[in-house]
Amino acid sequence: MAKDITIGFLGCGNVGSGVWRLLEGFGADIEHRAGLRFNVKKVLVRSLTKARDIQFPDGVLTVNPDDVLNDPEIQIVVEFLGGEEPAYSLMLRALNAGKTVVTANKVAFALHWHELQKAAKTHGAGLYYEAAVCGAIPIIHSLEESLQANRIDKIYGIVNGTTNYILTRMSKNNEDYETVLRDAQQLGLAEPDPAADVEGLDAAYKLSILASLAFHGRVPFEDVYIEGITHVSAEDIRCGQELGYTLKLLAIGKRDGMNVETRVHPTFIRSDHPLANVSGSFNAVYLHGHACKEMMFLGRGAGDMPTASAIVSDLERAATTCQHKYPTFVNELNPKVALHNNTDWQCPFYIRVSAQDEPGVLSRIAKCFADECVSIAAVQQKGEQHNGRVTLVVITHIASEKAMQRAISALDSQIATLESIIRVEQE
Amino acid sequence: MAKDITIGFLGCGNVGSGVWRLLEGFGADIEHRAGLRFNVKKVLVRSLTKARDIQFPDGVLTVNPDDVLNDPEIQIVVEFLGGEEPAYSLMLRALNAGKTVVTANKVAFALHWHELQKAAKTHGAGLYYEAAVCGAIPIIHSLEESLQANRIDKIYGIVNGTTNYILTRMSKNNEDYETVLRDAQQLGLAEPDPAADVEGLDAAYKLSILASLAFHGRVPFEDVYIEGITHVSAEDIRCGQELGYTLKLLAIGKRDGMNVETRVHPTFIRSDHPLANVSGSFNAVYLHGHACKEMMFLGRGAGDMPTASAIVSDLERAATTCQHKYPTFVNELNPKVALHNNTDWQCPFYIRVSAQDEPGVLSRIAKCFADECVSIAAVQQKGEQHNGRVTLVVITHIASEKAMQRAISALDSQIATLESIIRVEQE
Repeated sequence: MAKDITIGFLGCGNVGSGVWRLLEGFGADIEHRAGLRFNVKKVLVRSLTKARDIQFPDGVLTVNPDDVLNDPEIQIVVEFLGGEEPAYSLMLRALNAGKTVVTANKVAFALHWHELQKAAKTHGAGLYYEAAVCGAIPIIHSLEESLQANRIDKIYGIVNGTTNYILTRMSKNNEDYETVLRDAQQLGLAEPDPAADVEGLDAAYKLSILASLAFHGRVPFEDVYIEGITHVSAEDIRCGQELGYTLKLLAIGKRDGMNVETRVHPTFIRSDHPLANVSGSFNAVYLHGHACKEMMFLGRGAGDMPTASAIVSDLERAATTCQHKYPTFVNELNPKVALHNNTDWQCPFYIRVSAQDEPGVLSRIAKCFADECVSIAAVQQKGEQHNGRVTLVVITHIASEKAMQRAISALDSQIATLESIIRVEQE
Repeated sequence: MAKDITIGFLGCGNVGSGVWRLLEGFGADIEHRAGLRFNVKKVLVRSLTKARDIQFPDGVLTVNPDDVLNDPEIQIVVEFLGGEEPAYSLMLRALNAGKTVVTANKVAFALHWHELQKAAKTHGAGLYYEAAVCGAIPIIHSLEESLQANRIDKIYGIVNGTTNYILTRMSKNNEDYETVLRDAQQLGLAEPDPAADVEGLDAAYKLSILASLAFHGRVPFEDVYIEGITHVSAEDIRCGQELGYTLKLLAIGKRDGMNVETRVHPTFIRSDHPLANVSGSFNAVYLHGHACKEMMFLGRGAGDMPTASAIVSDLERAATTCQHKYPTFVNELNPKVALHNNTDWQCPFYIRVSAQDEPGVLSRIAKCFADECVSIAAVQQKGEQHNGRVTLVVITHIASEKAMQRAISALDSQIATLESIIRVEQE
């Protein structure tokens, strides 16, 4: 005897349609195996008249959120609206009405996790968000239910497919950023307004969620340092490759005692690191725990069906659990153990400068670095002289971010101009 | 107020000691975050007098299984004995006494899953086995709780660290099997009697478990085709590399409708496949589902602490659930939908033969293949002539296993002798 679960959708774009199709095409299997029958009773949309791929039965579509939120039969609300509002307010209303919420919305979730979880707990409702980070990859559930016995000190994510596609193309074919971005837009791999992806915001929302779970303490989105890929040049990618590095937009979370650093920026990693081979629009999360050691999850981070895979697995879990679980954050249990946000991280740096081609210049550059205790690991002179200037690529030993920034500002532009600075992870 | 959970160990070797240390070192964190306090009351060992790294409190060690199994306070029994017996009988006794079992034992589990699960269900006890496959990697839990909404058609595992270490060394340094095996034994990466690893049995037990979960139907260990790495030569690895392939001992499970094939054998995969870069003693599982698409999990498949990470996560789950879950197998729900074991799989083949160096030989070899509808994709003549013979490497198009075997037996040894045959996955 199958158990009927009545659900409602808030929104029905690409991912929502994927979930509808997955429930339709795979529903018999789920019923046969898990004894669950999901019935989508109401779907909130913006327009009832828009042409759609899916033939919804009469009466399912609605433009009134109340039809979803006030229907006592609807037990689970799946949110596909994206963005902060009205998604957050509607999810909160659903939870306050005792309905379980399943969401794919990293923005509203990263910004309002605390309030949403509080409402969920108060009303005994479930709150599921596997699909909010890395599409089909079960990283959320693994952090919550499989890696709990670890003190995770490091988590690296390639969590944005658009930027990874762009950087992969730039790396493989030595193409320019602008060219690849245009292609990606034409292929539908980048939005017409690509800012949220290429400026690193999307990755930062996801990192805030991942780091909070990995470190068992809330890491607010506002604490994430963000730098996108808009200034990345094909030249730097090539110089890095010659040194054995691959450029990725990494979402980096590190914990050392109660110090946490979270940052999203273009990063050079060793070309033989498992993350270096994560190409195209794939996502991956690499982490290190004190017991599990190194681990990596790789998969499709976006797309209708991969994201639907995560949503429907959340639906199955929500429908079969007898008690919803919520992650605990140690700093909420005891405010004295709050995590401290560290912005002066340590790492090696890759620096490209354009310098006067004359005796003594290297020693003057090296002195700016040495004055800030930044030690140089290697220097390469690149290419030909232009207008009396040459390109120098410097790799430093591990240095403090702030010291490095001071060293850079101390460079005399008469002798050397900074062309680019890229952080390196030596993992 | 923390909840006390009294547990008992059956065995306490490498992994058991790891769990003891993890509970000791990380117990305060688990208590603080999850409100659970695990107390190990009894540990079954073979000898009370053996020197041990761990100082067990008085009265914890015992040589009598009854002290663990008959103690009504012990709620969860963790089994580290390994092998089929007495592990299976003791786990069964524990379950029949209503105790939850957590196990790292792929052998006893793969062989007796059915009986163990039946006993667990009958007595409302939990049965947890994340640590039985791929150490720290949460592949079991992901298949059960995160990828359920997928029709998984393919699962590839590098599930044995010993053989992956040997093949990686052979591939990177062009070393001989015997040399690397000896080194691996000295480094403790291979057992003094390495048969279970190098002959593929260990991988086959794990594949039987993975395929059963992935395909929602029981795949008995006996149905797994097994071929180890003892006959792998450095020459084949090198020839494959020149053709763009990397050699791995793959555990392969495929499902097509109700047909299932499961096989463990040395396999050539494209050198740019994510699995090709899984090196040393790492494990990885790669799969494809109709919704999630491609996905890969990479991590430490063995070792005391990685395996302990999986065991303790099972302990936490077992201790916090209000109702234990068990996977359902569709063929048990309805015997008419039983999976059919297919042994005539289709794949390309790599074949190395030593052939007479005279006109017409290639055409006679090609005819043996053509007679069985095996179509040749490429032929390369390798190296120099020895005793009037040359080495030919043939790559076929996709062919049936049985046709290929017939073609090989039809080769006239006067003109060509088979040196090796290696299956290729073109994924």
